[in-house]
This record gives sequence, structure tokens and C-alpha cells, in this order.
Amino acid sequence: MKENVVICGIGYTRIGEHWDKSLRELAVEASLKALEDSGFDHVDAIYVSNMMSGMLQEQEHLGALVATYLGLRGIPACKVEAACGSGGMAIHQAFLAVSSGYYKTVLVVGVEKMSDRTTSEVTLALASAEDREYVISTGATFVGLNALLYRAYMLKYGVRQESIAKFPVIEHENALNAPHAQFRRKITLEDVLSSPLIADPLHLLECAPLGDGAAALVISCEEEAKNNKCDAVRIIGSAAATDILSLYEREDLLTLYATVKASQKAYEMAGIKPKDVDLLEVHDAFSILAPISLEDLGFAKKGEGWKLIEKEEVALSGRIPTNTMGGLKARGHPIGATGIYQAVDAILQLRNDAGKNQVDNASVALLQSIGGVGGTVTVNILKR
Amino acid sequence: MKENVVICGIGYTRIGEHWDKSLRELAVEASLKALEDSGFDHVDAIYVSNMMSGMLQEQEHLGALVATYLGLRGIPACKVEAACGSGGMAIHQAFLAVSSGYYKTVLVVGVEKMSDRTTSEVTLALASAEDREYVISTGATFVGLNALLYRAYMLKYGVRQESIAKFPVIEHENALNAPHAQFRRKITLEDVLSSPLIADPLHLLECAPLGDGAAALVISCEEEAKNNKCDAVRIIGSAAATDILSLYEREDLLTLYATVKASQKAYEMAGIKPKDVDLLEVHDAFSILAPISLEDLGFAKKGEGWKLIEKEEVALSGRIPTNTMGGLKARGHPIGATGIYQAVDAILQLRNDAGKNQVDNASVALLQSIGGVGGTVTVNILKR
Repeated sequence: MKENVVICGIGYTRIGEHWDKSLRELAVEASLKALEDSGFDHVDAIYVSNMMSGMLQEQEHLGALVATYLGLRGIPACKVEAACGSGGMAIHQAFLAVSSGYYKTVLVVGVEKMSDRTTSEVTLALASAEDREYVISTGATFVGLNALLYRAYMLKYGVRQESIAKFPVIEHENALNAPHAQFRRKITLEDVLSSPLIADPLHLLECAPLGDGAAALVISCEEEAKNNKCDAVRIIGSAAATDILSLYEREDLLTLYATVKASQKAYEMAGIKPKDVDLLEVHDAFSILAPISLEDLGFAKKGEGWKLIEKEEVALSGRIPTNTMGGLKARGHPIGATGIYQAVDAILQLRNDAGKNQVDNASVALLQSIGGVGGTVTVNILKR
Repeated sequence: MKENVVICGIGYTRIGEHWDKSLRELAVEASLKALEDSGFDHVDAIYVSNMMSGMLQEQEHLGALVATYLGLRGIPACKVEAACGSGGMAIHQAFLAVSSGYYKTVLVVGVEKMSDRTTSEVTLALASAEDREYVISTGATFVGLNALLYRAYMLKYGVRQESIAKFPVIEHENALNAPHAQFRRKITLEDVLSSPLIADPLHLLECAPLGDGAAALVISCEEEAKNNKCDAVRIIGSAAATDILSLYEREDLLTLYATVKASQKAYEMAGIKPKDVDLLEVHDAFSILAPISLEDLGFAKKGEGWKLIEKEEVALSGRIPTNTMGGLKARGHPIGATGIYQAVDAILQLRNDAGKNQVDNASVALLQSIGGVGGTVTVNILKR
């Protein structure tokens, strides 16, 4: 009875400091590429995922802005925001919209632009993902809150930092062959551990960088995709969940309840289990989120996610290739666009377009998008 | 095949300067009232409509914030933004979500808090609904842009200001009996025309006030409503459209194309015509938007909307009662919440709960929500 929802086109800019391009230009560039890739000349609605345009560009109403600059006058459009998880949430909303049957084809475009502002302005804007009145007002920063998780994780499970700090090393290796990645250079474990401490124990090279970028998807129903002869990837599971917003009110720091809940629902919808997943995109805004997410998504027992990293099971040649184009750390993390880049990277793999990073026989990909410190998590599962 | 979507519960705060309540407190108050009114003890998702929390409260991630403070840990939640039209857009997204069958019951809560900021800070934030780079940078304000429409309207159609400025007078009359209205006092046409000019020809009493408020709806499918014995109102039409964002690029200043497009689609979905509508909520952020909207929605010929105002056909006893609780001007205009208040006011009428303002035999209500100067318009049609 429900429509089968598919992704028919992808488009994206390189992630980096785009001093010569505005927010709208990035969004338009990615959108036009996605439309071209899909072969569709028309969409019925637009979802823009973005977190900080109000605070950083003093610009809201991105739905109408993007529709205007795409020359798509009239097309319904709105912005979807769920902090750093806006991208995954926009995919979920597009999934619901196409499932409803009221819209056949929708464009989802994620965009964020940070370069034009000072680091302290961006830090303040990012902190709006947590509770301004009761947490950020105490002086806590976003990286500081994640450092707390890191410390608690190492303490509780008796894990050495090396076992976690290896994750960005693997990601940088992957990004070498990702033309759209922000950082295409190798780093060593020693580089990571000797890079400056941002919030003890988090080193600079364990934190996703600031950057600008836009990525877009054309999402439609199976019938339209067939009519259009698209190289389509099906969304077989799509779910979202929230958790208590602030860490200080949670019973357990080391389980992101929203990841558990969203993934259970998405697995059930897809009719699969973690062992059926061929590749993974986890939201590693900070290295510590990788082992925790591997556990919460069911790829490792609680307290053992770090082993997958240490044994390089998350590398391209490992058991569960993760963040195959470099993830948030190396491909980049333009906040509202990040969840869309995850889909792009997965689809490059599922289409066998991943070049030197191609994972053999990849059929099922799982995308985890986190808002705040796990206040919101979406899980989308793709299959080709 | 598609679900019939109904509104099962309403909740709202009084609109005004809530110095003693924070944004989250307003949202929670309205949400709990809506849940109580609906009789539901559970929802499957939350949509928060808000425009300016980033710029005014330095707080994003309202989805998880509201879920947390409602005690609804885990429930999927996100923010929907379409400038001043966020409320109507959130209703549309909730409509799609319930239509999809993936969510049975959703909570929509609109909230905005402006009192804690200076008028110039709020003016700047409101201007983010228009194009920051090409329009607002020239010094244009939101009220200034609407003043251009006003001047063009009077010039083109040879209309005296009195015929338009009468609209807020009628609204203030309606608000006298609306306990939740920001301004419950009578004003005269003379009061309006002798109030300070904000942007010639717009007088102060033709402009919606700044204010804080939250309003919420519980939206579900017909089956759940029956199981729960709700006093439900059906959403028989729901549509959104955009227009070229900025006035300077439009061919015609005096037709809001997005209103025309969204209303045509909503009428078609509902299988009705304007003559079948019993009451109307138009987005009168400025008095001039009333006659233009009456025309674009099909209640008057082009250039003749003002006649419905002059002849008081929009009053409670008129042919098409409009903004029966005072509209944006007198009930109030807490931006992201406004579209939800429109639904609340209409449902009070459809349930025969409108007290002294009750319109006889009201069965069909149309709600128009505008973002920017018509950059986004949603039209939702309700029937009981």
C-alpha cells in the first residue's frame, strides 16, 4: 500500500572553505547536480536541511530562497532542522512525504556555510544544539561535552586512547581517494595524539573540522524511477528518535538511547539485522562517537566498539567498512549538509562508483545522523 | 488508500509579553493542553514550528528540547521553518506524516519568544525572512516592503486607505471576546489613521504586534480519533507553494502567486470552491495583506478585496467571517506559532466553542499562512 521510496540522484560540492561561494550558491550547485544525475526535470517539493543560517548568515526562509535560485518558482519548500542531525532528518521527512503519495518526487538539499564567521561565532552557534539555558550558560562547549563521554568511556571499559584515536587515522586514509573530501592527506596515530588538546582528552585531529558544503538527493517513488530509468537506490528503513537533550539528565552517558531506538525501528522496517549491513556511515563529529555508535547500532557489544577500530574491522577491507570516504573527520562536516553527504558516499558505493575505495558487493548501507550529543538520531538504511 | 487526517486536540497560551516564561515553558504549556484536550496519552512524533530561536535565543534543536521537557523521551522530533509561515508549513508536514501511515498521531507545536530582545534585534531577525544579501542589505525592513505593496495597491486600484485600514478595526472588535488575544480593546478607524506611521503608508495600528506565545495541535488519523472519541476536525485540503523570494524580482507586486497556487491545490484536494468556505483565517501581518489575500484566495476579484472590508463582509456577521478571534493584528503574531493559532481559532469555531464570536453553522474553515512577503504560503482547509 505504501510507496517504495528511492533515491534517484546525488549532487554535492567539495567540502572546504568556500570563500568565493555563498550559502545559496553552494545549495544551488549541489541541487542542480543531483537533478542532472537523476534525469528528472521536475520535483514536487524541496526540503532544505540546515542548522545555523539564522545565527551565521542572518538568513532564514531557506526553502523559498533555494526554490527561487533554482528557478523552481512555486514548488513547496521548507527548512528542516535537528541540529547536526538535520540532514538525516530531512531524508526522513522526504521519505514520509513520498510515502504519503502527495509528492512523487522531492529534492533534499543540505547546506551549511561557516567560513565567513569567526571560530568563536561558529562555536556559539554550534552550542545551540545543546541546552542554552542550563548547559551552555555554564561555559560548556560542544567539544567539552563530548570529551566527557570520552573520559567516561575509557574509564568504564578500561580502554586506551590509542584504540579510539585510530578511527580518524583510518578515515584520513579513506579520504585520500575522495575528491570531495575536505582533508585528503594521511595522518598517523602519533599525529593524532600529538595534535593540540581541544578538550581533554579530545585532540584536534579527533574533532571534525569546520567547513562549507552542500549535498543534494532526488528522492522519488519506484514507479517514477522506472519511468525515468534512474540508477535508483531504495530506502528500506527510515526512522528518527530523540533522547533527553542534555547529558547531565541521562542515566547512562555511554549509550546514545536515540541511536538504539532509531536503529531498532529502521532494522525492523527494513527486515534486516546488523549482520546484513555491508557498509556504514556513523556520525563521528568526535572520535569517541565512533565506538559508541558501533555499539548502539548493534555492530559490537556494549564496551567493545573500540575493538572494531583497533582491529581495523571498520577499514575498507574490514568486516564492516565505515565512513568509506572519510566521514565527518576527513571528508568533512558542514553541519546541516552532513547527513546528506553520508547518503551520497553510501550511494557512490552502492552504485559501484566509489573508485579506489570501492567495497566489493556492497548492497546494504546504514546511515546514522546525530543531532547534539545524541539528542536526536536518525537511521536511514539504503539498498541496491 | 490514504489516511484521513484529523485534528484531535488544541492547546494554546495567551499571546503577549511573557516575561516570566521561557520559550520551552510556553511550548510545553500549549502542548500539554493540546494532549489533554485530545485525550491522547501518546504521540508518535513531534513537529516544532519556529522561526527565530537561533537568532533570538541562540537555541536550535527545539525538537529534542521540547520532547525532553514534555517528558516524551525517544519520540522523533524536528523543527520546521518557513519564516512567518512556519506554523502552516508544520501542519502540512504533519499532514504528510500521518498520511504516510508511518506515524499515527503527531503533536505540532508552534512557539516564538520575542520579548527578551530589543525591538531592533527582533526587527533584524524578522528580516531574515527576506533576502539578506540583496534586499535587507539595502536597508529595507519587512514593514517597508509591505508598505510598497500598500502604496502600489492604492495607486493601481484607486482605493482610499480608509477601505483597508478598517480591517484592523474589525479584528480588534473580534479580539474583545478572545481570552487568548494580545489586544482586547476596541479601536476606531480614526485611531488607526492617527497612529504613528511606521513605513508610509503603514500606520502602527495596521501592523501585527511583537509577542510571545505557543499553540499546539494533536493531529491523527480518523481511526485513532474514533478509538479515542475525539471531537475531531478533518483536514480536507493541505498545500504549500513558494514564490520568487523577493518583491523586486516579481512581475506583479499585487498577486501573491504562492497564495494562488497553494489555494488552488488545497481547493482541488478538498473538492470545494471558495463559496463553500464558512470562515477564513488570513495572514494579516500588515493590513494590506488582507485585501490581497481575499483576492488571491478567490473571495473577491482582483482589485476588489478592499470592498469586502469596506462593506464589513469579513466581520462576524458578514458573508465571509475572517480572523474571528482578531487575527495577527489583535489576537497576535508570535511568528512560528501564528499558523497554529489560526488553526486553534478556526477549530474553536468549528466546535461551537467560540463563545460570543461564534459563527452560525460553521463547517468549513480555510487557513492561509504566509512566510516572508509571500515567499511561502500554505493553505490548510478544515471541515467538521
